[in-house]
Amino acid sequence: MSKNLLAIRHLEEKQIAEILNIAAEFKETVTGGGSIAHGRSRTVGLLFFENSTRTRVAFEQATHYLNFNIVNFSGTGSSMSKGETLKDTILTLRHERIDGLVMRHKSSGAPVLAAQYFDGPVGNAGDGQHEHPTQAIGDALTILERKGDIQGLRVAIVGDVEHSRVARSNAWLLHKLGAEVRFVGPRTLMPSHTGKLPGTVYYDLATGIADSDVVMCLRLQKERMSDGLLSSVAEYARMYQINRSTLRYADPEAIVMHPGPLNRGIELDDAVADGEMSCVTDQLTNGVFAKTAALEWVFREEMAEVTL
Amino acid sequence: MSKNLLAIRHLEEKQIAEILNIAAEFKETVTGGGSIAHGRSRTVGLLFFENSTRTRVAFEQATHYLNFNIVNFSGTGSSMSKGETLKDTILTLRHERIDGLVMRHKSSGAPVLAAQYFDGPVGNAGDGQHEHPTQAIGDALTILERKGDIQGLRVAIVGDVEHSRVARSNAWLLHKLGAEVRFVGPRTLMPSHTGKLPGTVYYDLATGIADSDVVMCLRLQKERMSDGLLSSVAEYARMYQINRSTLRYADPEAIVMHPGPLNRGIELDDAVADGEMSCVTDQLTNGVFAKTAALEWVFREEMAEVTL
Amino acid sequence: MSKNLLAIRHLEEKQIAEILNIAAEFKETVTGGGSIAHGRSRTVGLLFFENSTRTRVAFEQATHYLNFNIVNFSGTGSSMSKGETLKDTILTLRHERIDGLVMRHKSSGAPVLAAQYFDGPVGNAGDGQHEHPTQAIGDALTILERKGDIQGLRVAIVGDVEHSRVARSNAWLLHKLGAEVRFVGPRTLMPSHTGKLPGTVYYDLATGIADSDVVMCLRLQKERMSDGLLSSVAEYARMYQINRSTLRYADPEAIVMHPGPLNRGIELDDAVADGEMSCVTDQLTNGVFAKTAALEWVFREEMAEVTL
Repeated sequence: MSKNLLAIRHLEEKQIAEILNIAAEFKETVTGGGSIAHGRSRTVGLLFFENSTRTRVAFEQATHYLNFNIVNFSGTGSSMSKGETLKDTILTLRHERIDGLVMRHKSSGAPVLAAQYFDGPVGNAGDGQHEHPTQAIGDALTILERKGDIQGLRVAIVGDVEHSRVARSNAWLLHKLGAEVRFVGPRTLMPSHTGKLPGTVYYDLATGIADSDVVMCLRLQKERMSDGLLSSVAEYARMYQINRSTLRYADPEAIVMHPGPLNRGIELDDAVADGEMSCVTDQLTNGVFAKTAALEWVFREEMAEVTL
Repeated sequence: MSKNLLAIRHLEEKQIAEILNIAAEFKETVTGGGSIAHGRSRTVGLLFFENSTRTRVAFEQATHYLNFNIVNFSGTGSSMSKGETLKDTILTLRHERIDGLVMRHKSSGAPVLAAQYFDGPVGNAGDGQHEHPTQAIGDALTILERKGDIQGLRVAIVGDVEHSRVARSNAWLLHKLGAEVRFVGPRTLMPSHTGKLPGTVYYDLATGIADSDVVMCLRLQKERMSDGLLSSVAEYARMYQINRSTLRYADPEAIVMHPGPLNRGIELDDAVADGEMSCVTDQLTNGVFAKTAALEWVFREEMAEVTL
Repeated sequence: MSKNLLAIRHLEEKQIAEILNIAAEFKETVTGGGSIAHGRSRTVGLLFFENSTRTRVAFEQATHYLNFNIVNFSGTGSSMSKGETLKDTILTLRHERIDGLVMRHKSSGAPVLAAQYFDGPVGNAGDGQHEHPTQAIGDALTILERKGDIQGLRVAIVGDVEHSRVARSNAWLLHKLGAEVRFVGPRTLMPSHTGKLPGTVYYDLATGIADSDVVMCLRLQKERMSDGLLSSVAEYARMYQINRSTLRYADPEAIVMHPGPLNRGIELDDAVADGEMSCVTDQLTNGVFAKTAALEWVFREEMAEVTL
């Protein structure tokens, strides 16, 4: 059976550590001018059924680093516009000998479905409101670089936790590696079933981020207003924005994270977004190495066999 | 003059055999873990003016196997949206030193036109209701693997023969290699001028597939209904569907083929589509090696010269 | 600081000569069957926010020649459809470790903005009505091949100079290398502030192209009619078309150029477009080598450092 990377929730702590180690090692090699390219190539299908810049580009960069080939597939301009099902599309790619898939889809669970019909590694590049595992791995690498360890940290995830795959993957990873996870935001955007996610819910920002080592903001989707879950963006910003003033409640050494794209002046103000405590650009760079490590990890055993 | 692959109809038996041999050899090498990559690269323009998954992906995979470079071109996002003619687009690509073209177009004959203005190899990836040569080569490879030989086989092509480029390319190839070709389907979907295609027409499924070694279903395009050529899909399925019951008329060892995407429950039922007699997944894999072989075949002489 | 190629206007004569020399050398090597591929790769983001065939394909071909990797980015299907700013898109690509950018944009100055936020080389592939430097370099290579030198030539640029980035880049380059530049066309399509561009304005075709060595036609955009700047295309053709009859005013050895796509029968007639004096196809080929040289030039120092 192939190794997949579908959800942080189902990984063991040891597996997360493995991927993090590969990512750190790759970053050191590549930024030092070295190469991590494989002598033998693999063809990876990048299936992006949702718009994306940073994730698609990061995966393309990752495949270039490993010397893998890419087949891009976007849903439009394909047989899916003729009504072909996802299952049949996956089977087609399988029998056309694509070696691995990376998939973004608006439906939670779509990559899990894909993995049932495909016979090589499948990586989840974000599925609905479920998970976005390589985001969490890149974020963990960023925290490790800044804080040295994840064990024992207080991490406040601020914003629309209920609808966020980034929040879910990060919460699981941080919890598994021993951090204390807190969810902070308005009642309508908090997980509806407490107990489903490993963390404590706070509705008040000051209490929620008190003494925290990491403040992780989530992107506020404009759709939440039309859903009736938020009365106004201004109201949200007044109550939950991270800025110099609200950041006083956190630990003086706290770092601030955001998966991007930022709504500046809403989730955080410019002073924080561009300040020293901000890890936003590190998250982008580490996201590339997280994705490179994820591809390496899912293909590693199989490629080792080939080499023997 | 460059070697093209525009239509099976104009190939000699010997040329078809050459391409089939290359495809079989490539499949053995690649599935055995070997490489067929050329040391020197070529740049191939993939011009897909019609939606496609399986054909475009298969050609991308083929170019990766050969270590060729790809320039993708889709018509949208290009100067053709500014009103540039196909002729001028082809001339542009020629003088920008693209080495070869692979082209899908809704107009029959478009690749022939392209070959007049281009000066490297041109491959037809499906043009209107004319031909789809690499589909037929992959299908022939599939038949050879299952039946050992094509000479003397009875092959029934079932469905909308009149509008099918897959039917045309397959009929010519099978006829040239010595098979008996039959066309089976309703009167409105049969070739209008008998004599234009090498085969005998049957309107009754039982008679048409009687004792056949290969039953090749065609995809039923929904447009045929709005054209007034078919009263209903259900009616078509009742009279021409291949299922366990109708398959009794064929040879007990008969294989069933379909170029995909399948309309399950129409051209064939699930039991047959997923049964042992079905070659649908083999056709996908062999389609990749057929396309790889086609690219190799059109470029071979030219690349040999370069090496000398 | 990175080396960019944003505008011919700000290059020194010596730099232009450098790029032209690289282009000529690359052309000789590649057309002679040699390779100019780098052993170590770079990843180049091709950001095409406007439709393009010839320029995008030429840059893809250029990256293939140099063995660079490509990340394609078109604006649609990206986070810019979610409202991300150009600045944030550029910063994302920077921190995702894209090594260089090539950018086409409908706004004059967009690549200059990009270069402020990016930290590797940025190449301008055409920005609004500002510049299109690699077009001018390819055109200069074409003139050099046909005329031996640029110094002292009389070059008439005919058409919509006011709205043309091709005209601007060519005028600056030709002026810097010692040619006499003339602008010929109707009053409404001539540069509004004389003195802004290095050339003399002529409203009469016969006078403007008198004894010229090079007649460079510009593409007439249909939009000029709806802008009210042109009463009719037929009127324009009658007064400014280059054909055997009007070409008598130029030097008997004059060459005719056009950046494409041609509006045949408007800017020039078929006899001239396809005649011996036409350089249209050479311009396409030299455009590829100009782009290859431009990429080499902006990356050269940086790659030399890596090699040491």
